[in-house]
Amino acid sequence: MHTPRPPVPPFDDPRLEGGAAFAEGRIVPLSDAKISLFDWGFTRSDATYDVASTWQGAFFRLDDHIERFFASLDKMRLRIPYDRAGLREVLHRCVRAGGLQDAYVAMVCTRGVPPRGARDPRLAENRFYAYALPFVWIAPREKQLAGIDLHISQRQRIAPESVDPTVKNYHWMDLVQSLYDAYELGRDTSCVVDAAGHITEGPGFNVFAVKNGVVRTAARGVLEGVSRRTAIELCQRLGIALDVSPLPAQALREADEVFLTSTGGGVLPIAKIDGQPLPQPFPGPVTTRLYDAYWALHDEPAYRDAVEYR
Amino acid sequence: MHTPRPPVPPFDDPRLEGGAAFAEGRIVPLSDAKISLFDWGFTRSDATYDVASTWQGAFFRLDDHIERFFASLDKMRLRIPYDRAGLREVLHRCVRAGGLQDAYVAMVCTRGVPPRGARDPRLAENRFYAYALPFVWIAPREKQLAGIDLHISQRQRIAPESVDPTVKNYHWMDLVQSLYDAYELGRDTSCVVDAAGHITEGPGFNVFAVKNGVVRTAARGVLEGVSRRTAIELCQRLGIALDVSPLPAQALREADEVFLTSTGGGVLPIAKIDGQPLPQPFPGPVTTRLYDAYWALHDEPAYRDAVEYR
Repeated sequence: MHTPRPPVPPFDDPRLEGGAAFAEGRIVPLSDAKISLFDWGFTRSDATYDVASTWQGAFFRLDDHIERFFASLDKMRLRIPYDRAGLREVLHRCVRAGGLQDAYVAMVCTRGVPPRGARDPRLAENRFYAYALPFVWIAPREKQLAGIDLHISQRQRIAPESVDPTVKNYHWMDLVQSLYDAYELGRDTSCVVDAAGHITEGPGFNVFAVKNGVVRTAARGVLEGVSRRTAIELCQRLGIALDVSPLPAQALREADEVFLTSTGGGVLPIAKIDGQPLPQPFPGPVTTRLYDAYWALHDEPAYRDAVEYR
Repeated sequence: MHTPRPPVPPFDDPRLEGGAAFAEGRIVPLSDAKISLFDWGFTRSDATYDVASTWQGAFFRLDDHIERFFASLDKMRLRIPYDRAGLREVLHRCVRAGGLQDAYVAMVCTRGVPPRGARDPRLAENRFYAYALPFVWIAPREKQLAGIDLHISQRQRIAPESVDPTVKNYHWMDLVQSLYDAYELGRDTSCVVDAAGHITEGPGFNVFAVKNGVVRTAARGVLEGVSRRTAIELCQRLGIALDVSPLPAQALREADEVFLTSTGGGVLPIAKIDGQPLPQPFPGPVTTRLYDAYWALHDEPAYRDAVEYR
């Protein structure tokens, strides 16, 4: 649906082919990007992160990702040794070092390792990591074209009363187990519900339904995704009616069109819900408008932050 | 309350002083125990673990921990390259290599790293780690003697409908944030509730209340701790009345005695709830009986699995 990407520039260091990480203050190959088995980021999943992307050599809405990451850090009482400008520079360095045009770019902060025997998280020195990989799609390209089949799981997303979903976090056991359920049923991916049976989100994406020309998505209990926000803003810009409120699973089953939003692919049309084809020819007209507008936005200067590869 | 431990034997390798880990099939120093930043065990908290202990040179109820770990692996669709006997041998090796008498001994399995760009957990090779550290107490010794002050948090433990609490897991953001709340209030540790306001568990322990001679603990929504089971079995053995059912927060506030159970300390008496001293002199009589019985159990051959230090 969009143009093929240009070839990537040559790498400065062959060990950085395929991506680069930033750990302990310097650029390292991805294979050296490791955390201690004793870091609470692992043993308590006490960490936050964010994922930005570059497309054809430019970050998309990088400031929004950086802003959300700092908001997550604050809520988690975590700190990194960089301000916004410093973080931006680290992320640019990762993309540049890996020689990537279309990249998945992550920033991560973990609680760190408290002194031996201590169980007080205030005593740990927080750790910061970043990395850039070739762009990771929510679903393989051929699957996107063939049409993704989305499973609506009965599993419940971890509730906001337990873990604040607006803090981007690695608490994904519910989502991963729902993926296994989906695969066993022959579906391609999955989304989970809240205690009231309303759709929340899937592993790495928000969910949208289109019915009679109105675009609907969940109001709460979900990550406030940057791509979700982009889709919402595009509806407003394009004059598409929008309803952000609780989204019953049944409304998804009865939708004319369904699409996902994710940094890992932008606006992704869904072809089937639980094996049943959606009524609109795939991809549907509203989804296609938003898809085209999403990728067109990448050319607007306000959303672009070009990487200087030198 | 129990006798001091004998000195530890000399270490074979000075780099293993203070503990030893088992990673990628061999014993390594703790500082070399690392996982990839891309392991789903980190990026999805898609992992399970268990923690056993040794005391005065012998594992306590090791078979029960191994049994629970294998049950968790099954539920998570994870596999390790060892059977029960092989796992037992690895854990013994870690303790022996670290020269530890009183040890915290962990076994961990992560999903692993799926192929680049893939989002299918079935494609990842699961990873296994183990390590032995000096025994880690839930609370420092001096704090235990002075009397732990337990904060009852209003935060909700991640619900069983989202993450199966009987699978020992690293989804602890709720617990860690409740610890921060406790510290800000001047308390020592915390426990969290379920959606109905019933006590569930704290960071690394189960919670028990004693009222009019009856011992109460939560029936569901909690880890089925081996130390919890030990306390339950000791109540039965000692003829102490037991009530395993939902435990309202108010029942904890009105208790005569409160104690915690954890591999990190066995039976741990609590002195105060939210700053209010419990009515019984600290530690209370029922807690003291269970405490003494807990440590006496360590000498019974059925529960001991002695480490051979060479």
